Amino acid sequence: EFVARVSGIPTMAKLPYRDSADGLDAAFVGVPIDTGTSNRPGARFGPRQIRVESALLRAYNSGTRAAPYESLVVADIGDVNVNVYDLKDTCRRIREAYRKILAAGCIPLTMGGDHTIAYPILQAVAEKHGPVGLIHVDAHADTSDVVLGEKIGHGTPFRRCVEEGLLNCERVVQIGLRGTGYSPDSYEWSRAQGFRVVQVEECWFKSLAPLMSEVRAQMGLGPVYLSFDIDALDPGFAPGTGTPEIAGLTPTQGVEIIRGCRHLNLVGCDLVEVSPPYDTTGNTALTGANLLFEMLCVLPKVKYY
Amino acid sequence: EFVARVSGIPTMAKLPYRDSADGLDAAFVGVPIDTGTSNRPGARFGPRQIRVESALLRAYNSGTRAAPYESLVVADIGDVNVNVYDLKDTCRRIREAYRKILAAGCIPLTMGGDHTIAYPILQAVAEKHGPVGLIHVDAHADTSDVVLGEKIGHGTPFRRCVEEGLLNCERVVQIGLRGTGYSPDSYEWSRAQGFRVVQVEECWFKSLAPLMSEVRAQMGLGPVYLSFDIDALDPGFAPGTGTPEIAGLTPTQGVEIIRGCRHLNLVGCDLVEVSPPYDTTGNTALTGANLLFEMLCVLPKVKYY
Amino acid sequence: EFVARVSGIPTMAKLPYRDSADGLDAAFVGVPIDTGTSNRPGARFGPRQIRVESALLRAYNSGTRAAPYESLVVADIGDVNVNVYDLKDTCRRIREAYRKILAAGCIPLTMGGDHTIAYPILQAVAEKHGPVGLIHVDAHADTSDVVLGEKIGHGTPFRRCVEEGLLNCERVVQIGLRGTGYSPDSYEWSRAQGFRVVQVEECWFKSLAPLMSEVRAQMGLGPVYLSFDIDALDPGFAPGTGTPEIAGLTPTQGVEIIRGCRHLNLVGCDLVEVSPPYDTTGNTALTGANLLFEMLCVLPKVKYY
Amino acid sequence: EFVARVSGIPTMAKLPYRDSADGLDAAFVGVPIDTGTSNRPGARFGPRQIRVESALLRAYNSGTRAAPYESLVVADIGDVNVNVYDLKDTCRRIREAYRKILAAGCIPLTMGGDHTIAYPILQAVAEKHGPVGLIHVDAHADTSDVVLGEKIGHGTPFRRCVEEGLLNCERVVQIGLRGTGYSPDSYEWSRAQGFRVVQVEECWFKSLAPLMSEVRAQMGLGPVYLSFDIDALDPGFAPGTGTPEIAGLTPTQGVEIIRGCRHLNLVGCDLVEVSPPYDTTGNTALTGANLLFEMLCVLPKVKYY
Amino acid sequence: EFVARVSGIPTMAKLPYRDSADGLDAAFVGVPIDTGTSNRPGARFGPRQIRVESALLRAYNSGTRAAPYESLVVADIGDVNVNVYDLKDTCRRIREAYRKILAAGCIPLTMGGDHTIAYPILQAVAEKHGPVGLIHVDAHADTSDVVLGEKIGHGTPFRRCVEEGLLNCERVVQIGLRGTGYSPDSYEWSRAQGFRVVQVEECWFKSLAPLMSEVRAQMGLGPVYLSFDIDALDPGFAPGTGTPEIAGLTPTQGVEIIRGCRHLNLVGCDLVEVSPPYDTTGNTALTGANLLFEMLCVLPKVKYY
Amino acid sequence: EFVARVSGIPTMAKLPYRDSADGLDAAFVGVPIDTGTSNRPGARFGPRQIRVESALLRAYNSGTRAAPYESLVVADIGDVNVNVYDLKDTCRRIREAYRKILAAGCIPLTMGGDHTIAYPILQAVAEKHGPVGLIHVDAHADTSDVVLGEKIGHGTPFRRCVEEGLLNCERVVQIGLRGTGYSPDSYEWSRAQGFRVVQVEECWFKSLAPLMSEVRAQMGLGPVYLSFDIDALDPGFAPGTGTPEIAGLTPTQGVEIIRGCRHLNLVGCDLVEVSPPYDTTGNTALTGANLLFEMLCVLPKVKYY
Ligand SMILES: [Mn+2]
Ligand SMILES: [Mn+2]
Ligand SMILES: [Mn+2]
Ligand SMILES: [Mn+2]
Ligand SMILES: [Mn+2]
Ligand SMILES: [Mn+2]
Ligand SMILES: [Mn+2]
Ligand SMILES: [Mn+2]
Ligand SMILES: [Mn+2]
Ligand SMILES: [Mn+2]
Ligand SMILES: [Mn+2]
Ligand SMILES: [Mn+2]
Repeated sequence: EFVARVSGIPTMAKLPYRDSADGLDAAFVGVPIDTGTSNRPGARFGPRQIRVESALLRAYNSGTRAAPYESLVVADIGDVNVNVYDLKDTCRRIREAYRKILAAGCIPLTMGGDHTIAYPILQAVAEKHGPVGLIHVDAHADTSDVVLGEKIGHGTPFRRCVEEGLLNCERVVQIGLRGTGYSPDSYEWSRAQGFRVVQVEECWFKSLAPLMSEVRAQMGLGPVYLSFDIDALDPGFAPGTGTPEIAGLTPTQGVEIIRGCRHLNLVGCDLVEVSPPYDTTGNTALTGANLLFEMLCVLPKVKYY
Repeated sequence: EFVARVSGIPTMAKLPYRDSADGLDAAFVGVPIDTGTSNRPGARFGPRQIRVESALLRAYNSGTRAAPYESLVVADIGDVNVNVYDLKDTCRRIREAYRKILAAGCIPLTMGGDHTIAYPILQAVAEKHGPVGLIHVDAHADTSDVVLGEKIGHGTPFRRCVEEGLLNCERVVQIGLRGTGYSPDSYEWSRAQGFRVVQVEECWFKSLAPLMSEVRAQMGLGPVYLSFDIDALDPGFAPGTGTPEIAGLTPTQGVEIIRGCRHLNLVGCDLVEVSPPYDTTGNTALTGANLLFEMLCVLPKVKYY
Repeated sequence: EFVARVSGIPTMAKLPYRDSADGLDAAFVGVPIDTGTSNRPGARFGPRQIRVESALLRAYNSGTRAAPYESLVVADIGDVNVNVYDLKDTCRRIREAYRKILAAGCIPLTMGGDHTIAYPILQAVAEKHGPVGLIHVDAHADTSDVVLGEKIGHGTPFRRCVEEGLLNCERVVQIGLRGTGYSPDSYEWSRAQGFRVVQVEECWFKSLAPLMSEVRAQMGLGPVYLSFDIDALDPGFAPGTGTPEIAGLTPTQGVEIIRGCRHLNLVGCDLVEVSPPYDTTGNTALTGANLLFEMLCVLPKVKYY
Repeated sequence: EFVARVSGIPTMAKLPYRDSADGLDAAFVGVPIDTGTSNRPGARFGPRQIRVESALLRAYNSGTRAAPYESLVVADIGDVNVNVYDLKDTCRRIREAYRKILAAGCIPLTMGGDHTIAYPILQAVAEKHGPVGLIHVDAHADTSDVVLGEKIGHGTPFRRCVEEGLLNCERVVQIGLRGTGYSPDSYEWSRAQGFRVVQVEECWFKSLAPLMSEVRAQMGLGPVYLSFDIDALDPGFAPGTGTPEIAGLTPTQGVEIIRGCRHLNLVGCDLVEVSPPYDTTGNTALTGANLLFEMLCVLPKVKYY
Repeated sequence: EFVARVSGIPTMAKLPYRDSADGLDAAFVGVPIDTGTSNRPGARFGPRQIRVESALLRAYNSGTRAAPYESLVVADIGDVNVNVYDLKDTCRRIREAYRKILAAGCIPLTMGGDHTIAYPILQAVAEKHGPVGLIHVDAHADTSDVVLGEKIGHGTPFRRCVEEGLLNCERVVQIGLRGTGYSPDSYEWSRAQGFRVVQVEECWFKSLAPLMSEVRAQMGLGPVYLSFDIDALDPGFAPGTGTPEIAGLTPTQGVEIIRGCRHLNLVGCDLVEVSPPYDTTGNTALTGANLLFEMLCVLPKVKYY
Repeated sequence: EFVARVSGIPTMAKLPYRDSADGLDAAFVGVPIDTGTSNRPGARFGPRQIRVESALLRAYNSGTRAAPYESLVVADIGDVNVNVYDLKDTCRRIREAYRKILAAGCIPLTMGGDHTIAYPILQAVAEKHGPVGLIHVDAHADTSDVVLGEKIGHGTPFRRCVEEGLLNCERVVQIGLRGTGYSPDSYEWSRAQGFRVVQVEECWFKSLAPLMSEVRAQMGLGPVYLSFDIDALDPGFAPGTGTPEIAGLTPTQGVEIIRGCRHLNLVGCDLVEVSPPYDTTGNTALTGANLLFEMLCVLPKVKYY
């Protein structure tokens, strides 16, 4: 019996809703905050809108022949219950929620929410897996020490992660960086930690498949976390975000990056910074939903035809 | 423990989701169709968007002191699984779904969907309750015999209902009728059946509380169905609908009409014709969500403080 | 054979297109300019968008039982070919076009365009009918001598008309005036000419039917021109205009004003200042289309049931 | 020499920009925060958008013949430098900024920002004037003790003010309250403090001029603060806000309330909760700008013609 | 004498309106339906909006020096009178309308409408020309047997065409296919028929001119039909459509595909699936209008400078 | 002390406002007109919206390591006081304003406004520097003799410039030209003057860095003016403009063109045709702001790290 696309309460990809990660191989989970945002807010509604737009997602990946649901048990486990008035308490809540998800042996696919959330998620991830490799796709390095007087926010998560030893610094790559900055060399600190920095200029006009084969070599066999800030994409394609920067990646390149993560030991993924009030075309949430599905398709053990 | 408004998979009013009406006193149910529409489509997304906007609804009615959840068990039971390619088959599916809801002793509060759905719903309602009284709030009479060559559509449901004896014609009132029409007296047929017709001109600039006390007298003690087409409201307040007509009711009058239904023997209610792609302000779905909550508050047995 | 609302090239009210006014009793005609605008432009697209939204208009007026097409021959005669680079040349073109329309014995129902156009239209009207009465519905008096250094523009048409003797000043009423102004008494000049000035405060919370019966007395039997600036309406209902002022008339009051013109000797009507790029809800053009239909319904000789 | 409306860097009402309140009788000041918001954010952009839409404001009030600039020195003094990451620090910054404004003998006309800001503003106001009367126009009472676990936020400011003795409780009125609530009597606490509570139902369909003459009697000669939450207005007119509630006040009633404050000893006013990302028609910011101008017009010592 | 772009009733490319195809070499014709749509509707308004946006089209192709109007007689012949309540009857009406157009020796350039319409159009085309070659540009193969229980809809037209022998299967190419699917190999059936399938991955980052020279070889001298679903383009460029899929073709590639059809024996073209309610930037209809003009420019016998 | 991005009255890039160019090395200046527009207006609001979106601009160019504020004194000097009712008078006002800016030894970075303004700006520029080289980035050549009967408008500025000898014709390049035209060879006149014409087809799918090194050779050491019409970009990225043409440049290519101007003797730059009412995503103004910052970064004497 068929079910119309339009029908039903919107879970991610029309998957069943579950209230815990127990028994799941992978789970979509929302973290609806924007209190880490420095400019335009709205990312708190990211998970809701990604779920709404995900109604178009079908079961197979026509481009890669991945059949994720044939080998993995996947569900939507709802949202972390955030505290909109206390970002540090929210971080604590996220960390605890992810500890449980990871303890269940489930790989979290996170729908953000602003990029602050990568910090507590990586705390939980590193607690389980030790320091991890990181594939960070973003217009911004998010490695400031302090933003507008604060240590915790969407401009600082990866600084905090390095300080706490959560990352395997030589196994970190940042892709798509660009825009204006607060100092002459915006990416100096990243390079000093041993990160590979791929500024957007290196990406223009070309396939990123070759880059990704280098990235796979860099990542090796160890655990890898994929953090994808939707503002990595050009705002022509993804206007619904808080700190857009022009001349970014194309959705095609975004797909290539994720498909290029196949065969890695991915232990978690996020797609952050979708801000629906600014997503006047709806394309940002739609793109977020599709990129999350592509992430699911490259998790370890997914069946391919 | 608090839960942020923004958090969670959007059910109506953040109520629990249930997959059947068993054990419920009242249920919100969606009927996501627009294939009965003659002009602008989009009402198929009405239930989804009403649920999204309903996140602001709290448990008590500040205006009337109704406390619906203290005396009734209520849930969101999802959507009727409609057939977007066959309106007659969809009508059959609706009728059957409502038979089950009614058989469970549950009062359905329907989120449309275009107005066609009132016809199969009333078939199920009359099957259980016999011919019912009808409070029909709309810019249009929806009593055409045939529209664009078709018997079944959003311009004809109440004609069909009369033909099948589903309505107690002297206990029918139509409120808010207006606009341009296909014949010199657009409401002749309604009056000929014994309906009370309240054209919008009778409603301008004044409270509808006096009208509603007449309506309560007209309805008496028998079963009553309330069918509220959002286009009854002025499109300044409710732009997101398919056949908007200017100079309509205000939301205040809409609230008065519903509150005026308290103490009636309501056996079912619907709120139809919310078309999200045209709801550029979001106010139409928000209004729909609030009017549905007001309907819940006037169901029989609701506790008032 | 039926025709779907959505079908066909958009003429006003789906009327036939004619390339001249010959043989017509009344004609809808567009004047697509906004070069007389002082603030937000866009009214050049008013005629096009009013035509698009007019697809919903049916043949009869349900509220008044007017049947305009049973007694009048009506068509859409397209647009005056304006000069977007020379407002004075545009005025000349308008004047000449209206001379021809009037010479054919046809009553023009104008779709603006900014309010500047009332000046050349009234030149043609007065040339045929002598000085006329004027029912001017607007947030603004439009009686400045000079705006931003210019004599011709949307803030000055009625000053120019008075100077040229086109108006019967004691048969002029201005309804809905409000907002901020350039001098302590914004309507002093109007009153000094003998105009009746009805500030919006006199209109709040009440039916304008009593006012209109006074207006009919003021107008008497002589020729009357009706000029309706959509910004007379509250911008909650009509956001798509260039100089919106809050706390305006409701669409209901707009309809009452026009219906109150029945039995007058109307010799022309316009509906101006609809600016589609700012009409994010579409309600402004829809309202314009409906008000133009109401104007048609009160022309002399229209049949009523 | 004229200046086009469109021209120039957008200050409020095209007034000169000043970097302090020294020498001013009244000042427009922005407080660009939304971190006190529980549902939809965006009010941080309220001051910016109100300034943009204020370009239409001219020097005189056509409705009341007020000529504010003939008797008062007024400027735009920019924004309080808020801390987007720490709401309590933001409150401290606001309090200090308003101490300086008030010390200069200047009356602040505040452009919010979410309603949290009323609390630190009233701290500064009461420090100078002692406990004040309060005219609070809002859909919500904003008197919760704790919202989502927090004491400081846009749902709690007036609770905090009462606790700190900043208000003269018998000289407090709350107008426009409505919507759903968390308890059977949402306004019990307000009434218990001696506030006058005017629920929206008392306002429907009528002029608020009579109410305001009662309010003036209630307020007497003492200092009065006017706090106007734009969500008091119906979301049909003001969609751009974070917690909209249907069936609200009309802009006309909003204007009447403010005009009804003439002859009071107003010591400060605010207009809060304009959220531009949700203001799809632009009408919310436009309305905010006009209401702020109306507030200026009723300050003590304004000249009237 | 010049005519302003803004002026006049919107026909396609400001061409004359004709009520039949007699005497025309090519005709633009609208088919305003969306009842074949499975997800988001709105394509019924495609023809109207394409006409509106086409006002910018001038007479010559600056890129290719085509001068279509110097060698062909072209007009806008309005819309097929569809039945919005019966898709099969609509198909019959389309087939009959196209028989007449083709019988007049006129090449139809169709403005859709959803993709269902390609089926009855191809019935009429094959009736005249025999089985034809097909250049099908789309995100989707549209070769399902049944969608949501139905044989006729926008997901099935080319399956039906093959079943009825309307296509020369080895002269069919499908370009731009991508997205998620219902089975591991979404394009298996297409390949089994002998179609050439060009998945979008083969198109990324490069000119499609080389592909098109292979396509020209494949098509040879026989009759060819070009069917262009706007969702072939990336939704960053064409958000206004019902089933958007990310990582699609660019408008530049769309233009290359059409220009690459020059010198083929084109017997008909369509541009389908433009859904204006979702076209928030207006760019989808604008792109549709331009692609239709490019199609006109590659018809047989068009003059080039 | 930090300042939140959201805070403060919007000057370009949050620079200080100055009321003259005295003492400045470079100045951002607005020219808010659209009366030279032939199709969709709105560019009069371009400067205002570019300033609003520029709030995200930080001090350094991450891509090129330019540090413009370390070597140049830069401010926002507000808008030229245009005459919205007289385009020729506006041109005079622009010319005079730019004479003063140039006399102060300041390089103007202009925020348009429609492209007409390039003509009076170049009059002032050539008066100071003699005939200049021109890098003209646009979808259109803007070299018509007369448009809709007028010599002055946004379709003619470079024709006028050539006639008055303001350009060094062999040092003129036009990049991005495309779309439909009024004659078979739209760029014949340009080539006849000695301009280099780079149609968009030459730009598709590739980096423009090689082109720009040819352009630098063409320009040599003499003074060069850069005029960038935002409609050069594809309307997928820049929908907010008056005469959009599909298949245009990408923002990446726009950035490359500007960065390719480094080491030239730039004497002025403009970014024109941003029309905010059509910029539904906000991306057009954001792109304009960023491109203006890139222009600043390539002015002579800017420090690079
Ligand atoms: Mn980030
Ligand atoms: Mn980022
Ligand atoms: Mn109805
Ligand atoms: Mn209706
Ligand atoms: Mn006017
Ligand atoms: Mn006006
Ligand atoms: Mn409040
Ligand atoms: Mn409130
Ligand atoms: Mn298709
Ligand atoms: Mn498709
Ligand atoms: Mn140009
Ligand atoms: Mn251009």
